[in-house]
Amino acid sequence: MRPYELIKAKREGHSLPPDAIRTFMDGYTKGAIPDYQMSALCMAVFFKGMTAVELGAWTRAMLESGEVLDLSDIPGVKVDKHSTGGVGDKVSLSLAPLAAACGVPVPMISGRGLGHTGGTLDKLESIPGFRVDLSVADYRRMVREVGACLIGQTATLAPADKKLYALRDVTATVDCIPLIASSIMSKKMAEGIDALVLDVKTGSGAFMKRQEDAAALARTMIGIGAEMGKKVVALITDMDQPLGSAVGNSLEVMEAVDMLGGCAPADYTEATLALTAEMLVLGKVAKDEQEARGQLQEAIRSGRAVKKLEEIVRWQHGDPVAVTDYARLPRARGVVDLAAPADGVVTGIDSEAVGLAAMALGAGRERTDSVIDPGVGFLLRKKVGDRVRAGEPLVQVHFNDDAKLEDVKRRVLAAYRFGPSAPVPRPLVLQRLQ
Amino acid sequence: MRPYELIKAKREGHSLPPDAIRTFMDGYTKGAIPDYQMSALCMAVFFKGMTAVELGAWTRAMLESGEVLDLSDIPGVKVDKHSTGGVGDKVSLSLAPLAAACGVPVPMISGRGLGHTGGTLDKLESIPGFRVDLSVADYRRMVREVGACLIGQTATLAPADKKLYALRDVTATVDCIPLIASSIMSKKMAEGIDALVLDVKTGSGAFMKRQEDAAALARTMIGIGAEMGKKVVALITDMDQPLGSAVGNSLEVMEAVDMLGGCAPADYTEATLALTAEMLVLGKVAKDEQEARGQLQEAIRSGRAVKKLEEIVRWQHGDPVAVTDYARLPRARGVVDLAAPADGVVTGIDSEAVGLAAMALGAGRERTDSVIDPGVGFLLRKKVGDRVRAGEPLVQVHFNDDAKLEDVKRRVLAAYRFGPSAPVPRPLVLQRLQ
Repeated sequence: MRPYELIKAKREGHSLPPDAIRTFMDGYTKGAIPDYQMSALCMAVFFKGMTAVELGAWTRAMLESGEVLDLSDIPGVKVDKHSTGGVGDKVSLSLAPLAAACGVPVPMISGRGLGHTGGTLDKLESIPGFRVDLSVADYRRMVREVGACLIGQTATLAPADKKLYALRDVTATVDCIPLIASSIMSKKMAEGIDALVLDVKTGSGAFMKRQEDAAALARTMIGIGAEMGKKVVALITDMDQPLGSAVGNSLEVMEAVDMLGGCAPADYTEATLALTAEMLVLGKVAKDEQEARGQLQEAIRSGRAVKKLEEIVRWQHGDPVAVTDYARLPRARGVVDLAAPADGVVTGIDSEAVGLAAMALGAGRERTDSVIDPGVGFLLRKKVGDRVRAGEPLVQVHFNDDAKLEDVKRRVLAAYRFGPSAPVPRPLVLQRLQ
Repeated sequence: MRPYELIKAKREGHSLPPDAIRTFMDGYTKGAIPDYQMSALCMAVFFKGMTAVELGAWTRAMLESGEVLDLSDIPGVKVDKHSTGGVGDKVSLSLAPLAAACGVPVPMISGRGLGHTGGTLDKLESIPGFRVDLSVADYRRMVREVGACLIGQTATLAPADKKLYALRDVTATVDCIPLIASSIMSKKMAEGIDALVLDVKTGSGAFMKRQEDAAALARTMIGIGAEMGKKVVALITDMDQPLGSAVGNSLEVMEAVDMLGGCAPADYTEATLALTAEMLVLGKVAKDEQEARGQLQEAIRSGRAVKKLEEIVRWQHGDPVAVTDYARLPRARGVVDLAAPADGVVTGIDSEAVGLAAMALGAGRERTDSVIDPGVGFLLRKKVGDRVRAGEPLVQVHFNDDAKLEDVKRRVLAAYRFGPSAPVPRPLVLQRLQ
């Protein structure tokens, strides 16, 4: 099938033969098929979609455009978690050590933050010395011996996806479920995992504002997993307000350690427990969610979870003492409380606005080459449903640059909505799909 | 509006502001907007279409990407005809001198043939010495003094269309009515015309196989004309069999001269008269079709039509004697009659197959750089509805290359369908739109 015929067939709503998809993707990766044919195809996919079989072939072609790690010689069911991204989402930092502490090997390749969402790698790098650029040999060794390793993407993993993502970004084909799903899955499948838990966020701060879109994305990824012989479970979780209290890199590390110690905001704790419990079941160390949650509580209570994080930090060249002695983590020079403007109840916190304000403070990246300030960020003292009195501390702002402070304070305050009474509480886990 | 936003807006079915279309097209023409953004936009247009206002802006932007001829100082209403292309379509060769002989100035910029359809320029160039590469000054002078000029496209006319067409050709966005219509209209509007007659072909040998698609294309072009303040009339005409008897360059020139002399196949004669009559009405030299047809008959009967063709040929450096002395036109060395295989009635002639067989003989181009053999081609002795006896001459094949003959004969014969009785005759003009 020539590229022209393939584009035309998709445009007409036909499903493409898997071998034609593979040839096209190979040609694109190697530069034999130009960007303008791929962008036309992506736009046709936007309108006509792809079947589960096509998506399997598409994802596999992207996956096999680069190195695919093989961890089959490491005992146990290797399980990872992927989140579609949110504000204050430090779940990976607590989930990986918890799952590992319970005996599930976690090979985790994460991304960096951009725009209003933070990235796991940036958070980890706020721990002095922590390195995310380990070799594949070290990654493999850690998964085997420590039970978890958290590294960044390498150039050799799914290069087709890297090239395609840059193209989609400038041709208005990013927000297309089959293309999002295959992009995520090709990268995750390259890690060498056996199963995957998806945290698909929905709400004002999420990419998928509507729950039905989040569910459609989750179902598509589950379908791709099935095509590729991997078990995938998805939780649709709330991102109508930031997760937990901390937003900002070292602040989120502290909150993650707090969580492993059994003392963190309820929503963040629940997100970690729900997602990690799914990993324990997929990893066959617990027979059901209830048993899994029991094991997680035991790992927290016994201190094994925190110890596992220390072990990970040590292996990844970080300062393990910083895990419990927060004074060793980067801290902002200035801390100021932002006061509630009037009496009332918090009825909403615009996650995206909070994320963008954190970015403005230096906690996130505006461009891919922006430099992160690890110590700055917010602690949200009040969340949705909390009653506040005028003048009471609402948000603690950790800052280094006085010049930015007034603008950031204004933006954070504007992200809060107040009302006379509390809204009906929204559960954190909105839906479970498998 | 940034390119990304514009693509996204079209993808979501919004109509684009005219100034945003102009900026995008300008950027594309100059190379500031890359092919991959234009191809994504074209695919979005394929799915979401364009409104009359958008199409006006799109066409105008392509038109104004290059030189726009201004013939307003030449008296009279300048009218051209455009055909969407067929097999044996030599209408321009008879229509231009007829309209000019009746007082309608015809500024005609034509294309070359590719694939199964022939091109007006190739047919004209079979007249010894005939040149289609006149300067704009000569073109202008001829339209004024002779009343007609038939030249080829110049690099300065609608360069955006040239670039865009090449891109559409490799991204499966050719067969998209708004893009076809704007491509045609941008080139025609660059000629300096006041009004336009469209010959939109439908049937097995046409680009638009179904009459409703042909009508949709016609309506779109009429709409663009209206947006640009130009009167456009369209005839939907039959291309279920080749037009007339001759297929091949010098053979078609002879048939065109025959037509101007009043003696040519009925379908081709009717196509010329119907289309030229519309030009006379648009050109305000006749008040209605009936009066126009009277003037055309008079131009034929009096010999003025043939004289006008001779005049055009002379002005365009061709041998005017060749117009009446066919011995001066290129002729193939071999002529062979193809016999009817059995008794019966011709029920169909696959125009596309005939066109491709003519191309194989050398009468047309397989690639844009193929060289035309002007003398070769076919004379179809029998057309749809004609009764034939086994062994009776069906098609006269004019050939130069013996090696090609057997294959071509087989293909032409296979293009004919026979049956026991004549099908219901199909009118040549199927529909008129304005």
